Amino acid sequence: MSSSRPVLFLFMRIVTSIPQMQRLAKRWQREGVSVGFVPTMGYLHRGHISLVERARKIAGSKGKVVVSIYVNPAQFGPNEDFSKYPRDLERDKKLCRTAKVDLLFVPSNDEMYPTSPEQPFSTFVVEETLSKTMEGESRPTHFRGVTTVVAKLLNIVGPNVAVFGAKDFQQATIIRRMVRDLNIPVRVVVAPTKREPDGLALSSRNKYLSPDERREANILWKSVQMARQMTHLSPNGTSAAKMETRVRRLIEAQPASRVDYVAFFDPESIHPVRVVKRGTQMALAVFIGRTRLIDNAAL
Amino acid sequence: MSSSRPVLFLFMRIVTSIPQMQRLAKRWQREGVSVGFVPTMGYLHRGHISLVERARKIAGSKGKVVVSIYVNPAQFGPNEDFSKYPRDLERDKKLCRTAKVDLLFVPSNDEMYPTSPEQPFSTFVVEETLSKTMEGESRPTHFRGVTTVVAKLLNIVGPNVAVFGAKDFQQATIIRRMVRDLNIPVRVVVAPTKREPDGLALSSRNKYLSPDERREANILWKSVQMARQMTHLSPNGTSAAKMETRVRRLIEAQPASRVDYVAFFDPESIHPVRVVKRGTQMALAVFIGRTRLIDNAAL
Repeated sequence: MSSSRPVLFLFMRIVTSIPQMQRLAKRWQREGVSVGFVPTMGYLHRGHISLVERARKIAGSKGKVVVSIYVNPAQFGPNEDFSKYPRDLERDKKLCRTAKVDLLFVPSNDEMYPTSPEQPFSTFVVEETLSKTMEGESRPTHFRGVTTVVAKLLNIVGPNVAVFGAKDFQQATIIRRMVRDLNIPVRVVVAPTKREPDGLALSSRNKYLSPDERREANILWKSVQMARQMTHLSPNGTSAAKMETRVRRLIEAQPASRVDYVAFFDPESIHPVRVVKRGTQMALAVFIGRTRLIDNAAL
Repeated sequence: MSSSRPVLFLFMRIVTSIPQMQRLAKRWQREGVSVGFVPTMGYLHRGHISLVERARKIAGSKGKVVVSIYVNPAQFGPNEDFSKYPRDLERDKKLCRTAKVDLLFVPSNDEMYPTSPEQPFSTFVVEETLSKTMEGESRPTHFRGVTTVVAKLLNIVGPNVAVFGAKDFQQATIIRRMVRDLNIPVRVVVAPTKREPDGLALSSRNKYLSPDERREANILWKSVQMARQMTHLSPNGTSAAKMETRVRRLIEAQPASRVDYVAFFDPESIHPVRVVKRGTQMALAVFIGRTRLIDNAAL
């Protein structure tokens, strides 16, 4: 039965109904099928595809890889880019088929967040420690939206493993904490950030950048590089305040760039550190024009 | 293979470790075993046993019935009765064995709520509409503790059906909402309140009552009866304010009784009603001495 003929037709199932997805998930559980899950907001790029590949590696060729595409309104603030967040489902479908995704789950807002006047959606998952700083400080309701939708998606898809990108470092840490605290029976895997040749982290939001802004946008990665250099030159550590000033100065010297935050913290607890050493995690958020980009790395 | 000999040795498994419970749950899922679950705080009474019987009826003789016993600190306020809440695990074990429970899950606080200084427990499930009134108003952090622990227990035990008592009407409604909102793959069943011959709803907290208080405690049920009578005598409805006044007068005439709240509301939405009719739900909380008791019924 061994054949080297290429598979000509890659069947990818597309499910939009939550009950249908849950029935399938239950069947897979009964059949002992290993399920790897990559939750996304769509407008997929190589970063997402690397998560799909990681999920496949873990689930195995007999396992199932599920990708969800859902632009989750609950994680956008009232003045954020929910309505203009880029969407291209046809393109995403093709990319998923090419990446050998088994099932694309594309739920509707109506099913995800029921709005009936008698029984409106009213339950949220909140993480109350790790989510107070950085993204949580700049976007106060963001992580509550993230933890709520991820809890929902994990309950719907019932995966053995869920793969998240390291670009959203704080998000990944919060999801790990949520999974531990709520005893969600899933393994959380965090896969490395993918970058453009000039170091810019891949993000669906890069699409917002004008050509000038795009050239300027690698300032986030340049900042990481500068911080790394400073850290490596001072084996006894550098004051976080001093590092922050240097990074801010570098970024604000760019015409279109404005720092939202620069943070140096312990990668496990997300506690800010006073002295930056090798292994300290750095994260930053920068507005390039009106586009807000984030990045992070271990120093 | 049909035999009418009684089973002489009823084996009931006792599990205290969360990972062990989750491994078992996963195995049952793979084997297609139907699991009925009754979460309790222990000190079991006939009310709990009726929930076990309901769980067995649904899970079937080939299914598994799991009871958890966990006095959940997160649902007690700082000045409430957490430390003195009655506990008697040996008695509970016997009652569960007699009721043919398959597995008793008795987790520890350390596993349920990790307290390590670096990674303390920090994730909660909050229901923000139904939990604002009645018990939620009198006990502000109560339901957040309930929804959090029930979400955890459902993730740990992975049941097909979970059975809750109607005595905690608001709790049952909130849990239904949570299960719907977070897409938890479980069926929620609410089973009727069990009562003493004089109408007092069974509750582990009845143990706190002195003999005099115990005699007085059926005032909750008498209040329901009076409200029912008023409702049935006024087919066009009675003002909720008037009903409340009458019920308060009845209760406060007792030497040891003090009303915490009396509420008349729609059983689905838990919205208070202005006019009480047949089908309106009534709930009340009353201090008998220092013991706080609750009850509810459809009028």
